[in-house]
Amino acid sequence: MTDELAFLDATAQADLVRRRDISPLELVEAAITRVEKLNPELNAVIHPLFEQARTATRSDLPQGPFRGVPMVVKDLDGTLAGAPYHAGNRLLAELGYVPETTSHLFEKLLGAGFVFIGKTNTPELGLMPTTEPLAKGPTRNPWHTERSTGGSSGGSSAAVASGMVPVGHAGDGGGSIRIPASHCGLFGLKPSRGRVSLGPEEGGAWAGLVMRHVVSRSVRDSAAILDVIEGPMTGDPYTAPPPSRPYREEVGVNPGRLRVGLRTHTAAAMGETDPECVAAAEDTARVLESLGHSVEVASPAALDDENLMERFMAVFMSSVRAGLDELALLAGRDVRPEDVEPTTWMYASMAADVSGAQYVAAVHTAQVWTRHVASWWADDGFDLLLTPTCAEPPPVLGDLVSPDDNPLHGALRATPFAAYTAPFNVTGQPAMSVPLYFSAAGLPIGTQLVAAPYREDLLFRVAAQLEEARPWADRRPTVHA
Amino acid sequence: MTDELAFLDATAQADLVRRRDISPLELVEAAITRVEKLNPELNAVIHPLFEQARTATRSDLPQGPFRGVPMVVKDLDGTLAGAPYHAGNRLLAELGYVPETTSHLFEKLLGAGFVFIGKTNTPELGLMPTTEPLAKGPTRNPWHTERSTGGSSGGSSAAVASGMVPVGHAGDGGGSIRIPASHCGLFGLKPSRGRVSLGPEEGGAWAGLVMRHVVSRSVRDSAAILDVIEGPMTGDPYTAPPPSRPYREEVGVNPGRLRVGLRTHTAAAMGETDPECVAAAEDTARVLESLGHSVEVASPAALDDENLMERFMAVFMSSVRAGLDELALLAGRDVRPEDVEPTTWMYASMAADVSGAQYVAAVHTAQVWTRHVASWWADDGFDLLLTPTCAEPPPVLGDLVSPDDNPLHGALRATPFAAYTAPFNVTGQPAMSVPLYFSAAGLPIGTQLVAAPYREDLLFRVAAQLEEARPWADRRPTVHA
Repeated sequence: MTDELAFLDATAQADLVRRRDISPLELVEAAITRVEKLNPELNAVIHPLFEQARTATRSDLPQGPFRGVPMVVKDLDGTLAGAPYHAGNRLLAELGYVPETTSHLFEKLLGAGFVFIGKTNTPELGLMPTTEPLAKGPTRNPWHTERSTGGSSGGSSAAVASGMVPVGHAGDGGGSIRIPASHCGLFGLKPSRGRVSLGPEEGGAWAGLVMRHVVSRSVRDSAAILDVIEGPMTGDPYTAPPPSRPYREEVGVNPGRLRVGLRTHTAAAMGETDPECVAAAEDTARVLESLGHSVEVASPAALDDENLMERFMAVFMSSVRAGLDELALLAGRDVRPEDVEPTTWMYASMAADVSGAQYVAAVHTAQVWTRHVASWWADDGFDLLLTPTCAEPPPVLGDLVSPDDNPLHGALRATPFAAYTAPFNVTGQPAMSVPLYFSAAGLPIGTQLVAAPYREDLLFRVAAQLEEARPWADRRPTVHA
Repeated sequence: MTDELAFLDATAQADLVRRRDISPLELVEAAITRVEKLNPELNAVIHPLFEQARTATRSDLPQGPFRGVPMVVKDLDGTLAGAPYHAGNRLLAELGYVPETTSHLFEKLLGAGFVFIGKTNTPELGLMPTTEPLAKGPTRNPWHTERSTGGSSGGSSAAVASGMVPVGHAGDGGGSIRIPASHCGLFGLKPSRGRVSLGPEEGGAWAGLVMRHVVSRSVRDSAAILDVIEGPMTGDPYTAPPPSRPYREEVGVNPGRLRVGLRTHTAAAMGETDPECVAAAEDTARVLESLGHSVEVASPAALDDENLMERFMAVFMSSVRAGLDELALLAGRDVRPEDVEPTTWMYASMAADVSGAQYVAAVHTAQVWTRHVASWWADDGFDLLLTPTCAEPPPVLGDLVSPDDNPLHGALRATPFAAYTAPFNVTGQPAMSVPLYFSAAGLPIGTQLVAAPYREDLLFRVAAQLEEARPWADRRPTVHA
């Protein structure tokens, strides 16, 4: 039975349960079997929750839309009471840290009937666009096991791409949903700022850059799960205007004839874009044109501002330093260089030169810049921006890992992977990576589409169109169930 | 004609224009006459815009709901292209600074037909709850000219209380709408975070603490003007869920039987509450009970957290420092101690000890604390919190002004005035001051009511009930038109 179930999406698996063709326990056991088979090679799941999952299926599972469907959650971007939380960090691992609270987001997923069968690997504190924490070892890309899954949601992405589970929880502060979706041939949508609550532990992470959702194989899963998890929790600092109808109902709706701007270069300081990544975006442009949309080379001029991201590093580094300060509170002692990876220590050390006033100025700059970027949609008459998701195909494992004596290496090598994605964490706009393209070597290369603020509805309509025009569901990675 | 018009609210003045009983120019001339008569004593209007106002009435005024109605705007919390902007600061005054952009908020007010007849006095950079900038001299309270108007919207409040204009633009980062409304016998509502855009110049000021609106004499003016100015501008970092119907339609709607918590003490470190301020809140409690509401002594426990505001000073001081850095850019030179008031310089200097990571931690603490406070409304079943607006009646002018050798004086004396209001800038909840009570000496003492996040609708319903039960429109200050 396992193989037949492996590549059904969550919606299809939930339908089986609803029709009593299969029991939640059978679904979960099949997923556990797949994890046991595939994980030794992929290292996607780092904290199995098999017994808890089995127990959950024996109790009264909530009568939600995904009752009995197995999924994985990332070991970051949320906490699950009673389960380990290491965030790719060796000190948290040594402490054996187990949080006592469950994130609102996870409560909603559990309330929808999902069963968590494990927690997945991440780079340390989610800082890198590759999932190779020293504390846990690399997660391998199911399409090519010497390649990176991307990050930070690389463990979840490998689990979904290989067919262990239909969906995996993910979070995105600079591209961490879209980058691994791109590298692993998945669909990954970063919702608008305020769409999904980060409560109760957090208000807005990284000054509002972080948003959370899932990586999935199907567009309809992503839409229906966003219906489950969207909406505010009491006291949220950011809230998104509610959708006019459920996102799942956008799947299949004709988006009309859209005006799309194509951009295949990054701000100059961020380097060249690989021709295969350019080709991926141009290929998606052709598919969009075949669907009746209009595509022209155009993008917000503010995206060429080289200073913005540099200044915004003040926010990023200060957030890393604050994260290590919280870690010190948990550990009951100062965090030392040997407790974290070299690049993490470098970021935190650089934060010493950032004052609160500089932080305020950086946020102000970013907010003014956001208006310039977003006005392209509002005032220039464009519906979507189309770009490569990353400026390079999935890198070889190790390529982005800093040697001890050169912590800057990782930071610099990370840049081409986040150059297209991170600007929309600053602006808070919804953005997605769609898996339409494969390199000559057979590696997935995603394309990013960005909508106006709060227009996830439009992204889902277009994603479903692309999924129908160029179906990807039948493509199988090298390592799969 | 002047005296008959002076105490009509904006809604009534707009009706006269609509019925052609009076022309916009006549309305504006009458207001200018009142300013010319009263302002020498009150010092409310510091930048007259008389000629521009007259010219505006001669051109095609927009056909908005307030066509031809004169108002004033604060010399802070927004910019008006072509008009001076000094923000109570001597360096800006020396530079003769005139901004080139007009705030979205002001565009909306102008689009509604309002005519700006002048800009009003503020404390330096809006940092004090009294309007006594060294650069511009004190604004005097129309109810007692040796008393403070409060601040920072003290100039606008004196202009409205004295009958110069029916409404004045105002902004509130720690109580700056509610405090002067309380001191001047006006209605002042601080909207929810994200309700009114701060664009295009700003995203979220003071980490989201600042919100803008008006001070008015009538509840209906405040509601109808919020209908005009609410709603996002492209690229806003914060947006509030849209109201289910216009706020003006909430005026007169029965709010049902509400459960109200009464609190008449501040967190311990912030000092005692004056008995007359306690009496004001208890008096409002009795009016609410007479209207069928239930009032009990109760409030969110988190409001007794003494550490929160102290830690949040990291945000405040860093924002002051960043403000002086922007001032330096405008001036083309460093800002020196003699360019600002002693207390302002002290705040900016203290910011040198605040790192970006401490700023991040302070924001995080505030966001978690916000959940604790807001859950009282969501989970404990309360509809409203009732408190004094300030812990002291309007102080004597000079009382809050720091001597050159003791910059801490003003900061410490400011505390009782913001102790009840500032927490709801941190939480972003809507809160209002209603002018029901007068001290034995005849000074207005406002009462604050706070609703759950985004529930301005409920505040307007209750405010209108209170206004009907205990009308304040016929009370006249000592100095009035």
